[in-house]
Amino acid sequence: MSGNSIGSLFRVTTWGESHGPAIGAVIDGCPAGLTIDPVFIAQQLARRRPGQSDLASPRQELDECAVLSGVFEGVSLGTPISLLINNTNQRPVDYEHLRDVYRPSHADYTYEARYGIRDHRGGGRSSARETAARVAAGAVAQLFLRTLTVQIHAFVSRIGAITLDVPYQDLDMRTAADSVVGCPHPATAQRMADHIAEVKEEADSLGGIIRCVVQGVPAGWGDPVFDRLEADLGKAILSINAVKGVSFGAGFEAARGKGSEYNDTYSMIDGKVISVTNHSGGIQGGISNGTDLIMDVAFKPVSSIPRKQNTIDRQGNPIELAIGGRHDPCVVPRALPIVEAMTALVLADHALRARTARI
Amino acid sequence: MSGNSIGSLFRVTTWGESHGPAIGAVIDGCPAGLTIDPVFIAQQLARRRPGQSDLASPRQELDECAVLSGVFEGVSLGTPISLLINNTNQRPVDYEHLRDVYRPSHADYTYEARYGIRDHRGGGRSSARETAARVAAGAVAQLFLRTLTVQIHAFVSRIGAITLDVPYQDLDMRTAADSVVGCPHPATAQRMADHIAEVKEEADSLGGIIRCVVQGVPAGWGDPVFDRLEADLGKAILSINAVKGVSFGAGFEAARGKGSEYNDTYSMIDGKVISVTNHSGGIQGGISNGTDLIMDVAFKPVSSIPRKQNTIDRQGNPIELAIGGRHDPCVVPRALPIVEAMTALVLADHALRARTARI
Amino acid sequence: MSGNSIGSLFRVTTWGESHGPAIGAVIDGCPAGLTIDPVFIAQQLARRRPGQSDLASPRQELDECAVLSGVFEGVSLGTPISLLINNTNQRPVDYEHLRDVYRPSHADYTYEARYGIRDHRGGGRSSARETAARVAAGAVAQLFLRTLTVQIHAFVSRIGAITLDVPYQDLDMRTAADSVVGCPHPATAQRMADHIAEVKEEADSLGGIIRCVVQGVPAGWGDPVFDRLEADLGKAILSINAVKGVSFGAGFEAARGKGSEYNDTYSMIDGKVISVTNHSGGIQGGISNGTDLIMDVAFKPVSSIPRKQNTIDRQGNPIELAIGGRHDPCVVPRALPIVEAMTALVLADHALRARTARI
Amino acid sequence: MSGNSIGSLFRVTTWGESHGPAIGAVIDGCPAGLTIDPVFIAQQLARRRPGQSDLASPRQELDECAVLSGVFEGVSLGTPISLLINNTNQRPVDYEHLRDVYRPSHADYTYEARYGIRDHRGGGRSSARETAARVAAGAVAQLFLRTLTVQIHAFVSRIGAITLDVPYQDLDMRTAADSVVGCPHPATAQRMADHIAEVKEEADSLGGIIRCVVQGVPAGWGDPVFDRLEADLGKAILSINAVKGVSFGAGFEAARGKGSEYNDTYSMIDGKVISVTNHSGGIQGGISNGTDLIMDVAFKPVSSIPRKQNTIDRQGNPIELAIGGRHDPCVVPRALPIVEAMTALVLADHALRARTARI
Repeated sequence: MSGNSIGSLFRVTTWGESHGPAIGAVIDGCPAGLTIDPVFIAQQLARRRPGQSDLASPRQELDECAVLSGVFEGVSLGTPISLLINNTNQRPVDYEHLRDVYRPSHADYTYEARYGIRDHRGGGRSSARETAARVAAGAVAQLFLRTLTVQIHAFVSRIGAITLDVPYQDLDMRTAADSVVGCPHPATAQRMADHIAEVKEEADSLGGIIRCVVQGVPAGWGDPVFDRLEADLGKAILSINAVKGVSFGAGFEAARGKGSEYNDTYSMIDGKVISVTNHSGGIQGGISNGTDLIMDVAFKPVSSIPRKQNTIDRQGNPIELAIGGRHDPCVVPRALPIVEAMTALVLADHALRARTARI
Repeated sequence: MSGNSIGSLFRVTTWGESHGPAIGAVIDGCPAGLTIDPVFIAQQLARRRPGQSDLASPRQELDECAVLSGVFEGVSLGTPISLLINNTNQRPVDYEHLRDVYRPSHADYTYEARYGIRDHRGGGRSSARETAARVAAGAVAQLFLRTLTVQIHAFVSRIGAITLDVPYQDLDMRTAADSVVGCPHPATAQRMADHIAEVKEEADSLGGIIRCVVQGVPAGWGDPVFDRLEADLGKAILSINAVKGVSFGAGFEAARGKGSEYNDTYSMIDGKVISVTNHSGGIQGGISNGTDLIMDVAFKPVSSIPRKQNTIDRQGNPIELAIGGRHDPCVVPRALPIVEAMTALVLADHALRARTARI
Repeated sequence: MSGNSIGSLFRVTTWGESHGPAIGAVIDGCPAGLTIDPVFIAQQLARRRPGQSDLASPRQELDECAVLSGVFEGVSLGTPISLLINNTNQRPVDYEHLRDVYRPSHADYTYEARYGIRDHRGGGRSSARETAARVAAGAVAQLFLRTLTVQIHAFVSRIGAITLDVPYQDLDMRTAADSVVGCPHPATAQRMADHIAEVKEEADSLGGIIRCVVQGVPAGWGDPVFDRLEADLGKAILSINAVKGVSFGAGFEAARGKGSEYNDTYSMIDGKVISVTNHSGGIQGGISNGTDLIMDVAFKPVSSIPRKQNTIDRQGNPIELAIGGRHDPCVVPRALPIVEAMTALVLADHALRARTARI
Repeated sequence: MSGNSIGSLFRVTTWGESHGPAIGAVIDGCPAGLTIDPVFIAQQLARRRPGQSDLASPRQELDECAVLSGVFEGVSLGTPISLLINNTNQRPVDYEHLRDVYRPSHADYTYEARYGIRDHRGGGRSSARETAARVAAGAVAQLFLRTLTVQIHAFVSRIGAITLDVPYQDLDMRTAADSVVGCPHPATAQRMADHIAEVKEEADSLGGIIRCVVQGVPAGWGDPVFDRLEADLGKAILSINAVKGVSFGAGFEAARGKGSEYNDTYSMIDGKVISVTNHSGGIQGGISNGTDLIMDVAFKPVSSIPRKQNTIDRQGNPIELAIGGRHDPCVVPRALPIVEAMTALVLADHALRARTARI
């Protein structure tokens, strides 16, 4: 109940501060009999890692993930899977001057307001470093979902002023991984990359939007009333650092239109019920209807920018702060595996929950 | 774990089908010593009730809420508060022709896919009727929050094509209740009402946006990492029927801009830390910072429209369906007390959770 | 988290004070497709009801249980099942003189210490009246378990000084219901009845032991490490009023003996693994092994006795109290359906949990 | 929901197999501001460690506990505390011959029945090795409880045929730690030690009883109805390996007596409500009454004994098995810190829960 766990049957607890000795996750409820592929975990972590391009932060995190329990001879035991990633690149001394400072739009002040104490080194627990543990745990969830033919595709659909306006059906979403900005449309990807480069020059940062499409979810996942699929996915996504909005299907656009335009009608093809259109993003009454899940995620621009900003310290003294160090001008591309991980964690949970719906 | 409960310390479970004998809620965790004002509960239910204007459904639900336990001589005991609302206006026969039909954008098909059975009368458990129980429970949460000086204001900021473009700071949000469309700006409210009337003529429906502003939340509420305030609020809001998106502070707009434009800097006034701007909607690192919480909620248009739509029945036979009965062309105004209720439930929970953050 | 719910997947929340308008239970997670037999629910409630013999309290509770939701045309929907029992026999005025008194071994003082307020009428929430809601919910769990061929047999094995010393294998446990004291061995039952009659004459009360045997539980139920079958069953049983001890298999006796005497060895018969002996009560490492579950439950004597006792009121004034009203000299026989109900709730939960143990 | 977590507000998840690389625990919900004393954690682990006397197993486990997160400059941050203990003394090869064998009264068969797979090395997850993680986490809970003046004393009150028959009020319970068998009465301790030595000679094992007394718990802890203090303590205790029974206060003895003998009456001394006697073990209606909590815990004899036993392997072949290796003839003394740890975890949780009982 203290906020560091998610899921009910496929349940993940993360732990660790940005500049402590390590971070990690414990998965409780991963079903027995799953082949755990450490290479896939490593790949997902690599996608999240900073320093992958000159657009991103030069901080080098190797992020090797040790599996300390729950796996025996390569297969899950049904017991907790403990994942550990050492913080190999700690430089606590870099942060000494921030010990008393409340950085703008960071959690320094709010953690202190809550706990009366904080680890000032790189934001401590509030650092996006914590999401590496989620990515590792989410990779295990993805391995489980693959046994159920569920496939999760996240890609960048907006960076600042640049929007991708090609429908996902006309794209090969898997090519997002080939793009330095995570956009599966090369021309748009190039414009996004240029935009980031530009803003980096200005010592500023950018936000953006990630679209996540999930294919292969069978009809019948999602628990009414409060644990609807949108609700649980939305919560998981809104728990990611810098996310300030989430929507499903037509989302905020639907608020502008009429029922006759946005209703999804049903048909039957080869004995299978089909939703002819998909304005609702694959979910009705909180339960999947067998079509693609579609989710959009809004990220605010990175708070840590190198240009000077005004703020205060704990005593209220005004401070002029230029945040140095290793920070990306735009984290949205690196957030792709995080969005996938959080989506996978929720769906793995609901895959198990669906098993108990009938006698 | 079956989706009908929300909250950890202030925990609410709702039950009931639309056309069963009754619906209700059990609140477990309401602290002892709270004066329970039944008039306030009744008022909130009245705001949600259909049939309040000729814009809305003519269905008459009296929605008297009985308090069956947990309150002794007007004061909460600390034991579960059981709330019950009879379904006085059941007309199951109205729904007999829908027994085998999958209505477009309704949960008929998805409930059946999950459970193998459904109560076809008015959508059964998936009906928005269920939200009356939330409103009653949310009213108790609001009574608790008032003892902590927290005030929740929800108002309609968009109906279909009509947007309210006055900042909330320039409005008296309490006047939303005076408007038939729930908008605290009379001129805009009139245009919204005209828009609804127009679309009603077309046998169609509209969606819209509700803005919810919470004042008086102290700094320090919200539980990192997964139970951030945005995450828990977002989940609660996304569990409301017809909601397809939620955002906080600058929300999706922030995805278009730069860090230098959206960062909130701190200042100190009279020994109190103040967030000078509020692009983040009062939350940083998932924890409240003492400024107003700001949340936007997108509702899709009502699925039940009187004009003819194509769909199928359980056997796959094509059906042409014109949904008669008692349905609003736009439910957004009636959703205001629901948004307030869900917001209150989350904040009451976090108010209690905050008590355990320090030794 | 406030103590009025039990179970994770088959989850029950009870509510209600002894002399409020009603008590009830909400079951969230009963799988869809279960035929709900109201007659069985009524039968179990009848077994718990006072006033069944002149050994028991003359209070008449009819305990009709209404099913307000979650059941459609006789079959469970998968949605919450709301059960309500009116308190038809309220006599609040009977309790006015106890408003300020702390009855010996009752929860009057402790509730007040916790909540600062209490409903003094018949103990309010702490009354054994609350267990009627458990019995109703437990009956639904039993209906579910019957579809899995699980059978629960509870019987009285001790009343005060009188012990049943015949092994359950030599008894027809179903005949417990034929005995006024719930003991399936007529001669012992008679001695127990005489003992109760005797002690009733002395204006005193008796405790006793219930043995509960569960047959038909397959191997593989129970969740290590903390949610072992003994742990979850033990918790459920220890939550019953007046229970002060619980043990499994050889229980406290095993503490006196040697490993060579108490180890259970395995054999295989017809391709099925069999535990040759059953000192461990059907559970190893917290997981069922396919043999009978055996549990013993110790009840202290009823606290409410008609003879004079010394105590104090809220202000510390000494009070000489003779508790009148409608109280049994021995509640153990009436506790049989409660023990069965709590056992059923735990096993129904674990039956569902077992479904998620493997991919 | 998969059984490896306990507690709601002070919540602990353990992980790790006996012969995997490490075991550990994550504490979520430890309040911020607590001084974490690593020496105390080490001391508690040392008490559990095998090899402390020639009565116990010669296995050497150093059990150094690393604190990987949640503590900053010696003080808890309010974030998860991750504890890790390496398994330094792994000898997987020792267990190869047990890969297919179902040891008597062990969890080999039941884990396989549940998961379809098991780690056969030393029992894997079912090994008592796991309790080291509990002891480490429990030590943190004890540090928290000490700030509230709660003191937990566990001592051995029976080993096989030898019983301690001196009331705890006449003993200095702290001296239990001075005794090789954990009994604070030297003469009885000697007889217990002799008894163990004798049984070791016979290649057999012994069980016993631990009494746990908690002093300083204020009135008002414990959550009715299902999360009574007995229920939550009982569950925690019954989750310890080899525990087959638990009782509170007069326990099973009370089942033999009369209400007039076992009722606890109240008095007031210096303005404080006092329970004059303590047959109920400090708890009424599930809530503490301010007197000592008293709990008795029954341990069955150790299952691993060196003498030959009959059992089968996975294919049903009969096996004659003499379990070699490093096993204690009596684990009860080493279980003292485990009982204390589980008691501390429950009380720390309820200490926090009590904070939310009133507005």
